[in-house]
Amino acid sequence: MKSVLVVYSGGLDSYTLLNKAIQDFDRIQAITFNYGQKHKKEIQVASTVCNELKIKHEIVDLDLETIFSGSALVGKEEIPEGNYDKEQMKKTVVPNRNMIMVSVAASLAIKNNLSTLWYGAHAGDHEIYPDCRPEFIERLANVLRICDYHEINFEAPFMNYSKTDIVAEGVRMKIDFSKTWTCYVGDEQPCLRCGSCLERKSAFEQNNIQDPLK
Amino acid sequence: MKSVLVVYSGGLDSYTLLNKAIQDFDRIQAITFNYGQKHKKEIQVASTVCNELKIKHEIVDLDLETIFSGSALVGKEEIPEGNYDKEQMKKTVVPNRNMIMVSVAASLAIKNNLSTLWYGAHAGDHEIYPDCRPEFIERLANVLRICDYHEINFEAPFMNYSKTDIVAEGVRMKIDFSKTWTCYVGDEQPCLRCGSCLERKSAFEQNNIQDPLK
Repeated sequence: MKSVLVVYSGGLDSYTLLNKAIQDFDRIQAITFNYGQKHKKEIQVASTVCNELKIKHEIVDLDLETIFSGSALVGKEEIPEGNYDKEQMKKTVVPNRNMIMVSVAASLAIKNNLSTLWYGAHAGDHEIYPDCRPEFIERLANVLRICDYHEINFEAPFMNYSKTDIVAEGVRMKIDFSKTWTCYVGDEQPCLRCGSCLERKSAFEQNNIQDPLK
Repeated sequence: MKSVLVVYSGGLDSYTLLNKAIQDFDRIQAITFNYGQKHKKEIQVASTVCNELKIKHEIVDLDLETIFSGSALVGKEEIPEGNYDKEQMKKTVVPNRNMIMVSVAASLAIKNNLSTLWYGAHAGDHEIYPDCRPEFIERLANVLRICDYHEINFEAPFMNYSKTDIVAEGVRMKIDFSKTWTCYVGDEQPCLRCGSCLERKSAFEQNNIQDPLK
């Protein structure tokens, strides 16, 4: 029996991935991270979708910003250091976030005896995020293969897809894009102005279809 | 300026590693994980040592057992599955834990602009824990090299050391082994009966020295 854990944010890419998993696997579970994002709406959407599809779903709180700067910081006395640049530190809020999430997801996959782990990184992310690049995915897959007695097969099926390709894949599978959340602002309706909204708009236009969320 | 973040548990291996870091690096920070271990005493010891040595120290709460089984589990309705084996699940409490910890440590290293990450895995761990094996360390190092714009140099300097070799290294550096905690039970005094105590005892005996904790 083929089994998979899908890292599922509630957004368009991972929703399409989740639906692809339903086609390709016999047993599917999903994991969503609450990492302190403003657009919590995507988590609600993920939860609703998993309930509807009867997919076992784990929502994991992993607010690393708080972990590093808040309650977890013990020993309040600041030890001064020459090279300590506070402004520099603030700029990079949670580096290596994707690797942390994938590591936690792998842990759950091992625990629940799921042999494959799917992750929705796509080609549009490569230039901005180092941890979405194909070489990062490959090297991470190499570690996960031997991280436990249980071998994890880590894959990012959309690694070479553009957002437009992903929408095309969703259209081919006849999935309902109204069950996705993309906007970074997280109001009742998409703002249609943030980078995420604009990228989505363009992907639907290039497929000559109407976005059901509008 | 050479800088390092040491994954420091408060135990003998990572205390020796911390002291080695003081010899080899100009700028040192330490990270300790509170992952719900019974022997919380090692965290207190780590905190005291870092205060004494004026090493900037972050204690990170990462109780993955709670994350997976407790408050983070949303959507209470259990969806029954054929292959779901509860007993099987309980046996493997937190698989992939070391990879998660190293990923979080890498995040802190990037954030605080530290170029090297040191991890205290040693040869005695290899047989039991897949995530302490040299090939795991190597593959993890390959991922960390490209996980961010900031390159992380991940090393486990004791990878090929036995516990006896580590004690010998500590003796050479004239470090104070009374400032370490090894016992898994975590009472006021070491139990001298758990596997961890017995391994420590043997390492001191083989070096023909007295353990100051006795």
